[in-house]
Amino acid sequence: MEIRVMQGIMDVNGEIAKQNRELFLERKITVVNVLASPGAGKTTLIQAICSFLKDIRKVYIIEGDIASSIDAEKFEKSGIPVVQINTGGGCHLDANMLREAVSILKPENGSLILIENVGNLVCPAAFDLGDTLRLLVASVPEGHDKPYKYVSMFSYADAIVLSKTDLLPYIDFDMKMFENGVHALSPKASLFKVSCKTGEGLEDFFDWINKI
Amino acid sequence: MEIRVMQGIMDVNGEIAKQNRELFLERKITVVNVLASPGAGKTTLIQAICSFLKDIRKVYIIEGDIASSIDAEKFEKSGIPVVQINTGGGCHLDANMLREAVSILKPENGSLILIENVGNLVCPAAFDLGDTLRLLVASVPEGHDKPYKYVSMFSYADAIVLSKTDLLPYIDFDMKMFENGVHALSPKASLFKVSCKTGEGLEDFFDWINKI
Repeated sequence: MEIRVMQGIMDVNGEIAKQNRELFLERKITVVNVLASPGAGKTTLIQAICSFLKDIRKVYIIEGDIASSIDAEKFEKSGIPVVQINTGGGCHLDANMLREAVSILKPENGSLILIENVGNLVCPAAFDLGDTLRLLVASVPEGHDKPYKYVSMFSYADAIVLSKTDLLPYIDFDMKMFENGVHALSPKASLFKVSCKTGEGLEDFFDWINKI
Repeated sequence: MEIRVMQGIMDVNGEIAKQNRELFLERKITVVNVLASPGAGKTTLIQAICSFLKDIRKVYIIEGDIASSIDAEKFEKSGIPVVQINTGGGCHLDANMLREAVSILKPENGSLILIENVGNLVCPAAFDLGDTLRLLVASVPEGHDKPYKYVSMFSYADAIVLSKTDLLPYIDFDMKMFENGVHALSPKASLFKVSCKTGEGLEDFFDWINKI
């Protein structure tokens, strides 16, 4: 019984995700689903992308949080169009939430939408939103073993940003082990090592952002 | 329909949690459910507790992970009885998993069981295990805003450890904002600020561990 109901939910989500994807393709809108643990640096990275693209491409933000609008307020202050989705306890965004947020944002053709998903390395990987790309942010303080423990999420990513590299001197982080895990699970994913604090590695990452 | 099925699952979980709790009370076993984001330092803190209690109290470990047995192997090497639970995609442990793990461990009366839950600040707060205490580990690099974003988890905690305080000089962390959030959501919870790297703050925390 439980399985049948869950299947029903997933079918509906998959159908809406498909419609979202068709709409974005037709209107040449790139939609990046930004995924990470709590506190990995999603918001800071999205802010850096917004600054970089300021005069290049129109950007919209969708903020997913269980509670609060702390991050959405940061973007609103910078004049970037933003919609806050509070899931009210829900551990991930779904395709219908994205559809509703897009209907509020009314994005221009050719624009970029950055979705900050709920901070969670598990559940968001099970819910296709209809996005164009999945960008996983993994931070140095979380440790080099994360790919081995959160296999679905790392396999699900199209690109991976290792953030907070400025903390490498203070943390026992085995880069080789991290890279091996990433390449095993996501052999095609681009891997960027960045520090939004020092700016290290952002140039390569922005080159990639410019092409999506 | 979905709600009814979910209610059924929660009823069964609650019933098993109640039985677990009665068993632990009867046998004077303290069971601590250790909760955190991925990479907040749960394993390192549990290792520190094991070292401290080595000659004081019998300790058992239950390791919850979606995949891998990286952490369980660390404890096995130290000769500490450990059971690994792989949830196979599941985002939290449940009361039945705890019951089964305990039946394998066969803990002594008066002992301490430390459960390392799946790294996730959302879902584990919805599933009572029948534990004695919930210990939330929040790490400095995750940022001071976590209590405001993960309200259920912070409200659910009986004690909170702010870990990795050795990184405070390198991170923009507003301690007052963090503390205000913690006290608002968990007014009765003890808050410990520790670094397992330097040992700072561990003495107070171990005093508390000694009393549970």
